[in-house]
Amino acid sequence: MLIVGEKINTTKKSIDAAVEARDEAAIRDTAVKQVEAGANVIDVNAGTRLKTEVADMEWLVNVIQEAVDCQLCIDSPSPAAIEMGLKLVKQKPIVNSITGEEERVKEIMPMVKEHGTSVVALTMDEGGMPSTGEDRLKVARKIIDMIAEYNIPMDDIYFDPLVQPVGSGLDQGLAVLEGMKLIREAFPDAHIICGLSNISYGLPNRKLLNRVFLPMAMKAGLDAAIMDPTDRDLMATMMGSRVLLAQDDFCLEYISAWREGKIS
Amino acid sequence: MLIVGEKINTTKKSIDAAVEARDEAAIRDTAVKQVEAGANVIDVNAGTRLKTEVADMEWLVNVIQEAVDCQLCIDSPSPAAIEMGLKLVKQKPIVNSITGEEERVKEIMPMVKEHGTSVVALTMDEGGMPSTGEDRLKVARKIIDMIAEYNIPMDDIYFDPLVQPVGSGLDQGLAVLEGMKLIREAFPDAHIICGLSNISYGLPNRKLLNRVFLPMAMKAGLDAAIMDPTDRDLMATMMGSRVLLAQDDFCLEYISAWREGKIS
Repeated sequence: MLIVGEKINTTKKSIDAAVEARDEAAIRDTAVKQVEAGANVIDVNAGTRLKTEVADMEWLVNVIQEAVDCQLCIDSPSPAAIEMGLKLVKQKPIVNSITGEEERVKEIMPMVKEHGTSVVALTMDEGGMPSTGEDRLKVARKIIDMIAEYNIPMDDIYFDPLVQPVGSGLDQGLAVLEGMKLIREAFPDAHIICGLSNISYGLPNRKLLNRVFLPMAMKAGLDAAIMDPTDRDLMATMMGSRVLLAQDDFCLEYISAWREGKIS
Repeated sequence: MLIVGEKINTTKKSIDAAVEARDEAAIRDTAVKQVEAGANVIDVNAGTRLKTEVADMEWLVNVIQEAVDCQLCIDSPSPAAIEMGLKLVKQKPIVNSITGEEERVKEIMPMVKEHGTSVVALTMDEGGMPSTGEDRLKVARKIIDMIAEYNIPMDDIYFDPLVQPVGSGLDQGLAVLEGMKLIREAFPDAHIICGLSNISYGLPNRKLLNRVFLPMAMKAGLDAAIMDPTDRDLMATMMGSRVLLAQDDFCLEYISAWREGKIS
């Protein structure tokens, strides 16, 4: 299970303020805490700062890489910001994201190819957000066709089936789980990632719903998540899910995490 | 989701002592607390007390029914103890259990038919415990054939696919989930029940593993569980799972439970 730490994102006020003030200590601290808590990858997103995003990305990637020796997820709607991130990364990054939109593929995939990165593929296109599980699979298939010419290894593709809030439509949970299952069956060598906490948006006790969703999603094929690694209960849920899904041989990681006091 | 409170079971030392001492207050208290916590059914099991089980069952059923107005699950390996329980119950009970063993079916099913009860059917037979999901479905099909002559409504059958500890074999979690899914597909009008906490036997932080297993099992088709209703986190997990699986219209029960402080 690949844990992508979500916290360095300027949609969060404290991060936006830290970026605005060029507060290196705050960003370093957020990066270090996520890695210490078990993040394998640090997401870097300054997408809300439209006018300064490229310079912000440059500053963020440099500050984070001084603090931690970790893979980064270069997360932006802006091709220029992604290009800046890719110039600076020291380890193979994940580019977040392409969609099934032709323009987006043409802007982003040449950079993915040139830098040999992994890439997140959101299962949406010009038709908008997917509704059913089948919709998600359909866009996933379309994206695979669209990017065939770039000859990217399947292991470098992270499908994101777009988790929508269950509070906005009661069948959103079942639909995204079905999408994960269908994509896992169709593309067993690709990865499936999601922004986990979207599921609980607008409902009380979001952390509980996130913890309930994670085991179901992992059973459906999720093997990467953009989430808060400093949420101890959520990380413990991830480790317990690996035991139940036969992903943790002899429960060694679970028992070791328990001995270290991470599961309590 | 039907919650069967597991706590009145003489495998627990405190319950065995209370039965031995005919301590009505202790049994009443255990029954009341389970119902207050959300149990729909109270399991009654004195099966470890071989020599006195029939008299113990008589005493237990009477004491519990004085304390709570609740459906009971008459849970015993002994046909005589089950017969005693069925004579006394005031509400339609669940008999726990038959198996795919011919002798067991012949001993128990006439009582199920006579009293018009529901029945738990364990997916095991003379061949022993099931290993794979397919094994579980095979025994479920066999049981349906064996009990056809009794003409029991499908809605009164609770298949128990026999949860085995994931610590005793890493694929036990996946196998029982597959069994639930296959039985749910084959018999959509029957119920699926299990003893939830068996999954975590022998591992540290059992409650965490039980909480991780429940959402996966409910997704696979579980709609009843023999569990500890006084485990607040587990009950909250059950309510969250219902939201994600589109079983809680407009999230009304979830939001109401949150307002009552049950999800915190």
